[in-house]
Amino acid sequence: MATRDRVKVAVVGASGYSGIEAVRILAAHPFVELSVLTSEHYAGREVADVYRHMAGVDLPPFEELRPDLLQGRAEIVLSCLPEKVGTPVLAEFVRSGIKVVDLSADFRLKDPAAYRTTYGVDHAAAHLLREAVYGLTEFHRPELREARLVANPGCYPTGALLALLPLIRRDLIEPSSIIIDAKSGTTGARRAASVEYLFAEVNENFRAYNVGNHRHVPEMEQEIGAALGRDIALLFVPHLLPITRGILTSIFMRPRRGTSESDVHAAFEASFAKSRFVRILKRGELPELRNVRATNFCELSYVLDKRSDTLLVITAIDNLGKGAAGQAVQNMNLMLGYDEAAGLLAAAPVP
Amino acid sequence: MATRDRVKVAVVGASGYSGIEAVRILAAHPFVELSVLTSEHYAGREVADVYRHMAGVDLPPFEELRPDLLQGRAEIVLSCLPEKVGTPVLAEFVRSGIKVVDLSADFRLKDPAAYRTTYGVDHAAAHLLREAVYGLTEFHRPELREARLVANPGCYPTGALLALLPLIRRDLIEPSSIIIDAKSGTTGARRAASVEYLFAEVNENFRAYNVGNHRHVPEMEQEIGAALGRDIALLFVPHLLPITRGILTSIFMRPRRGTSESDVHAAFEASFAKSRFVRILKRGELPELRNVRATNFCELSYVLDKRSDTLLVITAIDNLGKGAAGQAVQNMNLMLGYDEAAGLLAAAPVP
Amino acid sequence: MATRDRVKVAVVGASGYSGIEAVRILAAHPFVELSVLTSEHYAGREVADVYRHMAGVDLPPFEELRPDLLQGRAEIVLSCLPEKVGTPVLAEFVRSGIKVVDLSADFRLKDPAAYRTTYGVDHAAAHLLREAVYGLTEFHRPELREARLVANPGCYPTGALLALLPLIRRDLIEPSSIIIDAKSGTTGARRAASVEYLFAEVNENFRAYNVGNHRHVPEMEQEIGAALGRDIALLFVPHLLPITRGILTSIFMRPRRGTSESDVHAAFEASFAKSRFVRILKRGELPELRNVRATNFCELSYVLDKRSDTLLVITAIDNLGKGAAGQAVQNMNLMLGYDEAAGLLAAAPVP
Amino acid sequence: MATRDRVKVAVVGASGYSGIEAVRILAAHPFVELSVLTSEHYAGREVADVYRHMAGVDLPPFEELRPDLLQGRAEIVLSCLPEKVGTPVLAEFVRSGIKVVDLSADFRLKDPAAYRTTYGVDHAAAHLLREAVYGLTEFHRPELREARLVANPGCYPTGALLALLPLIRRDLIEPSSIIIDAKSGTTGARRAASVEYLFAEVNENFRAYNVGNHRHVPEMEQEIGAALGRDIALLFVPHLLPITRGILTSIFMRPRRGTSESDVHAAFEASFAKSRFVRILKRGELPELRNVRATNFCELSYVLDKRSDTLLVITAIDNLGKGAAGQAVQNMNLMLGYDEAAGLLAAAPVP
Repeated sequence: MATRDRVKVAVVGASGYSGIEAVRILAAHPFVELSVLTSEHYAGREVADVYRHMAGVDLPPFEELRPDLLQGRAEIVLSCLPEKVGTPVLAEFVRSGIKVVDLSADFRLKDPAAYRTTYGVDHAAAHLLREAVYGLTEFHRPELREARLVANPGCYPTGALLALLPLIRRDLIEPSSIIIDAKSGTTGARRAASVEYLFAEVNENFRAYNVGNHRHVPEMEQEIGAALGRDIALLFVPHLLPITRGILTSIFMRPRRGTSESDVHAAFEASFAKSRFVRILKRGELPELRNVRATNFCELSYVLDKRSDTLLVITAIDNLGKGAAGQAVQNMNLMLGYDEAAGLLAAAPVP
Repeated sequence: MATRDRVKVAVVGASGYSGIEAVRILAAHPFVELSVLTSEHYAGREVADVYRHMAGVDLPPFEELRPDLLQGRAEIVLSCLPEKVGTPVLAEFVRSGIKVVDLSADFRLKDPAAYRTTYGVDHAAAHLLREAVYGLTEFHRPELREARLVANPGCYPTGALLALLPLIRRDLIEPSSIIIDAKSGTTGARRAASVEYLFAEVNENFRAYNVGNHRHVPEMEQEIGAALGRDIALLFVPHLLPITRGILTSIFMRPRRGTSESDVHAAFEASFAKSRFVRILKRGELPELRNVRATNFCELSYVLDKRSDTLLVITAIDNLGKGAAGQAVQNMNLMLGYDEAAGLLAAAPVP
Repeated sequence: MATRDRVKVAVVGASGYSGIEAVRILAAHPFVELSVLTSEHYAGREVADVYRHMAGVDLPPFEELRPDLLQGRAEIVLSCLPEKVGTPVLAEFVRSGIKVVDLSADFRLKDPAAYRTTYGVDHAAAHLLREAVYGLTEFHRPELREARLVANPGCYPTGALLALLPLIRRDLIEPSSIIIDAKSGTTGARRAASVEYLFAEVNENFRAYNVGNHRHVPEMEQEIGAALGRDIALLFVPHLLPITRGILTSIFMRPRRGTSESDVHAAFEASFAKSRFVRILKRGELPELRNVRATNFCELSYVLDKRSDTLLVITAIDNLGKGAAGQAVQNMNLMLGYDEAAGLLAAAPVP
Repeated sequence: MATRDRVKVAVVGASGYSGIEAVRILAAHPFVELSVLTSEHYAGREVADVYRHMAGVDLPPFEELRPDLLQGRAEIVLSCLPEKVGTPVLAEFVRSGIKVVDLSADFRLKDPAAYRTTYGVDHAAAHLLREAVYGLTEFHRPELREARLVANPGCYPTGALLALLPLIRRDLIEPSSIIIDAKSGTTGARRAASVEYLFAEVNENFRAYNVGNHRHVPEMEQEIGAALGRDIALLFVPHLLPITRGILTSIFMRPRRGTSESDVHAAFEASFAKSRFVRILKRGELPELRNVRATNFCELSYVLDKRSDTLLVITAIDNLGKGAAGQAVQNMNLMLGYDEAAGLLAAAPVP
C-alpha cells in the first residue's frame, strides 16, 4: 500500500479458532498491519510453528497478554479471549484509547444483572456496558462508525437476528411464536481439550444440547426485545453438526394476520438491499453451509407456508466468519472508516 | 434351530441400502432362512461379490424378479423395490398367499387420489389399499399380527409419528401447531447414481430441502388425522446431514392449556411402556443418532418450555433401522407370530 | 442358556473405547455373563447412564478397581486399562487364579529392557513376561487354549502381522525390505480430553505421525524376528484418518527371487484356511474398512507387482475389533474352551 | 486495476470441480478478467445460479463450447474438459493463437503410442505433443514462459514428482526402488453421477484402488525417466480418503549408498529455495492436508530412516489446487509474464 499507511491491528487470544481465523482474514486485508498477537498457550512461538497454514505470511510472534502491551503498537484490537478472562484488560485498552472489538459475550448484555445470572459473576467493567455497541453490523452501522467498544455478536444470535430483526421491525410476525432450531459445526466450541468434542464423539453423530437454556438466549431476547419495545421469550434449540464450520438456523414464526410474501420480501430487502454480505435467495433456493464457509456471507431464504400458517426463515453463516471473526473485521472496517467489505469478499472454496 | 423349522423369507430389491440392511438383519435372525434375494442390477451374482461384509454368511445369489419367483420358496417377502416399480408384483404375491411387507410408499396412503397426487400415476393395485396395515408397529400390533400386506412407514413419518401419536391420542397439543424439523443422513436417498449425493456435495455441508412439499407429508397427515378424527396440515422441513445413517426429528407444538410434564410423560409411557424399541429418556437427556445406529431403537425425549409455551419432542432413529429394514423385520415378526424383538436387539456400535 | 452356566467375565477399564466395545460384544455373547465392570471415571454409575446405546441390556454398574475385586466374581478378566496403570493389579489377578487378557501393551514385549526403553519405566511384573502368550490368535491357538495371561496385540501390529507372518514363515520375502504404511481411525487414541483429537483438528485432515518411532514398532519387530529367527528392522509409518474406526495397512516387500503369486496365495491359505476371521480376497478385490467395521474380521489381499519387483499386501481391520476387543474375545473364547468365533460373527453394518 | 488492462481469460469445462475452482481463483486474480466460461451441462445459466458461492462476483454466464468461441474474446484458456473430449478444440485454439493450459491428461504423454495404450484411442492432435510443455511449474519455468500449450500435470503426479525429481536430479536414490503410496480426497474424481462416489459409499470408509495400473503411472514414469535419462518402473498405490480435497503422498525409496540427510535437504533446497509454493518443513514436522486446502501450496518433509535404509518423503497438496486449478493459474501467470504467485497466496482456511 504505497499511498496510505496501514493501520496497526492487534488480535488477543489469537490462537483459538476465532482468533486464528481473524489472523487469516487480517493477514490478507489491504489496509491492515497485524502488529501484535497474543496467546496464553503459545506465547513466544512463531505463528507458523503452531499454524503452518500461515507460513509465508509476515506475522509477529505470539506474545503474552499484558494491560500495557498495545501502547503505541496498535490502534485497534480484536479480542478473542474467553468471557470473563478478558474483561479487565479490555476495559484498560478502552481507557487508554485503543478501540476494541470483543468477540466474547462480555459486553453484549446491557444489564449487569442479566450478565450475573448468565455468567455467574459480577461484570468486571459494568460501566462500559451502555457504551458498548452491539456489532450486528447490518443494524448498527452509524453507531459502529463512532464506537470505541464493540460487542461482537454470538454466532447463534447472528444467524437468528439477521432473520428476525427485519420482520420484527415491520411487525410482520407474532413475537411470542418464535422458535429457533439451529445446527452448528464444532468450532462453535472453544479449541480446548475435551472428551465431548473428540472426533469419535462427534463424527457420525448428531444431537441437540442445552435446549431452552443456552447462554445465547438472553442475547437474542435482548436484541429482539429492543427492536420490539418489550420483553419476549423465545425457544432456542441448538444442535451439534459433524462438520467443522457453519450454522444453519431455521426460525419458525406465526405471521401476523395479513402478512404476505411480498411483505416479508420487502422487509428483508429494506434491511439488506445495501448489504454485501446477506444474500436473499431466490424463491425455491435454500441456504447451504458450504456456500458461506470461510466467508462473512449469510444466505437467507424464507417460506410462508399457508397450510400451517407458519413463516420459516432459514439462514446459513460460518460461525467463525459472519458468526465471529468475519463480522469482527466488518465492524473494525466501519470503526476505522473503511468500506465494511474490505478484505472480506473472497468466495467460499466449494466444494 | 433344532426344534423348529426356520421360516423362508425373501427380500426383493435386496441390493439397495434398505434391502441389504434387511439382508444383514435377517441373516442373523434366529427363526428365519433367507431363501430368495432379488436385484435388478446384480442378478446372477453372489451377495458377497457385491457386498463383501456379508461374506461368510450362507445366502442365495441375487436373482431377477418375476411374479412367480416366490412360489413354494418363501412364506413372506420384504420388498425394497422403489415406489410404482413393485406394485403389480406385490399384488400378485398377496394374491398367491405370500405375506408382504412393502418398504416403499405404495401402500401407505389409503386414498388412491392422494396417491395419484403425490406420485403422479394411478395406483396399480388400489384394491389393496384398504387392507394394507400401516406398519408403525407400536400402534398397530393387533392388525399386524393378522396382516397379509403391511405398508412399512417412511423413515421421516416414523421419527415424527412416534412423537406425535401419543400426544394426539391424549389430546395434549394443538393439532394446528405442529412443526417438524427433521435431519436425515444420506441413505434416506436411494443407492443410485447422482451428482446431488456425491461425497463432495454432501460432506461439510448441511441444508434443508423440499420444504413444505416433501412426499412424506401426506403420509404423516393421514396418520395424525386418523388419530385425531379430522384433517390437519403440518409443516415439515427435512434436512440433509453429512452422515450415513440416522434421522433426528424435532417436533414443536403448542400444548393444550393445562398440559403438564407429567401428562406428556404419561402419554409416552402409555404408548411405549411395553415397547422394547422406544426409549423414553430421562429428564435432561437428549437423543443422539449414534445411540440408535444400525438398530431398530428410537430415543425420545421432550421439553415442555413454559417460557415460550412450546412442547418440543425429539426422536432419534436409524433411517435404515426403525425407519426401514428394522421396522420391517419387527412387523414381519408379528405377522409370523414371533416376539417382535426377535433378531433386533443387538446394541449400536458406539463409537 | 439352559444347558450350561454362563462364565462370569469382568472388564476392567470398561468405559474407554476398547472397553465399551468389549462390553458391547460380551453383552451379546452366548456363553458369557458380564459380572464386573470397572471405570475410574464413572465408578458408581450405571453403564446406560454413560453409554445409552447399552440401555436395555442387563449389566452391572461401573465400579472402582481394587486388587481383590474379582474374587469369586469373575473367572476371566479383559483389561482395557492403560499401559503401566494396570500392571500390578493384573499380576495379582493372575496370582489369584483369574485368567487375564490384557489389551494394553504391558505384556507384549518379552524383554524387560525393551519395555523399559519403550515405556520409560521398569516393568512392574516382569516375572510374567515369559509366560504371557501373544494373542495374535491365528498364530497361537494351542498356547492360547492353555494360557493364564494373554497379551492382546496392538491394533497396528495385528494389521501388519497378519500379512507378514505367513510370508516370513515360508521365507517368501526379503525381511530387510519391509515397509508398513498404515492408516488408522481416531479411536486408536484413548478416549481422553485432548486438543489433538478434537473433531475440528481431525476432520477434513490427514497426516502421518510418529514416523519411524511409534511404540508399536518393537512389538512388530519382536514377532517378525521370532518367526524369522533373527532380529529385523522395519519402517512403520502410521497416519490418522478422519474416520472413527478402522486400520488399513499396506505392507511393501521385496519378494525373494522366484516367489510367485501362487506361493503367496499358498502361504496365506496355509495360515488362514481354517480361520473364520481373515478373508483372503479374490484377485482384483481390495480391502475396504467399511467391510470390517464393528467386527473381528480382517480383509486381506495382495499384489505381486513384477514391474517394480514388489509384493504389496493390504489388510483392513477394525482397530477396536480385531485390533482390540474383538480379538480379546476371540482369545478369551479359546482360553475358556469355546469356539473361537462365539459371539463374534455379526456382519458389519454397511453402509 | 487502473494502470494496466486485465488479460481476458476463458475457462472451458468450467462447471466441474477443477473448473469452478479455476473460476474461484481467477475471479480474485488481480490481473485477470474472466471473459468466457463454458459448461456443457449448464450452458445458458448464470454461474451463481449453479454455484451460489460465486454470487456477488461479476462473471459471464456459462456458454456452449464452440471452436471459434474464443476469437477476440480471450487471450488464454484454461481447459477443464475431460480427456479426449477437448483435444480437437484445444488444437484449434492453439492454431488460432490462443494460449492453452489443458488440465486434462491429453497433452501430458509425449509418446502417441503411450497415449493410445493408456486412453484407448489415437490422439486427435498428436502433432502438438512435442510442443506441449509439462506444467510442473517448479521444474519448467523457462519453457512455461514461452509456451503456447501447457499440459497441466495430474494431481497424483504433482504430489509425487515434487518429491522425486529433486532426488533423481542429484542421483540420491535407487530409481528402481520407488514406491508411491498416495491418498486422495474424492474431488480427484469428476463431478459426475455415480454410485461409487456417493457419500454413503465413501464416508467412514477407506480403500486402495487401481493398484499398479492407474492412468497416472505412465505420466510419472515419463517425467522421472526424462530426469533420469532412462526408463523406470515404479509402484503406485492410490487410495480414496473420506475427505473432499487433498492428496497426501508417501514415497519410499532406497537411498544411494552414502546419501545423507544434508544431501536430501540440499536437493530440496536447490529445487525449491525460490519457490513460494513448496514448503520444506522443519525436522520433526509432517505434512497435513488441511494446511494446503484450497491453496496452491505443497508441504514436503522427509525422513531418512537408517534402521531400514529407507528414504521417505511425504507431500501434501490440494488436488484441486496445486494438483489442478492452482497450478494451472501458476502456469498461466508465467505464460502471461506475471509473477507466478499472482492471485495464489491466500492462506488455507484452518480449521
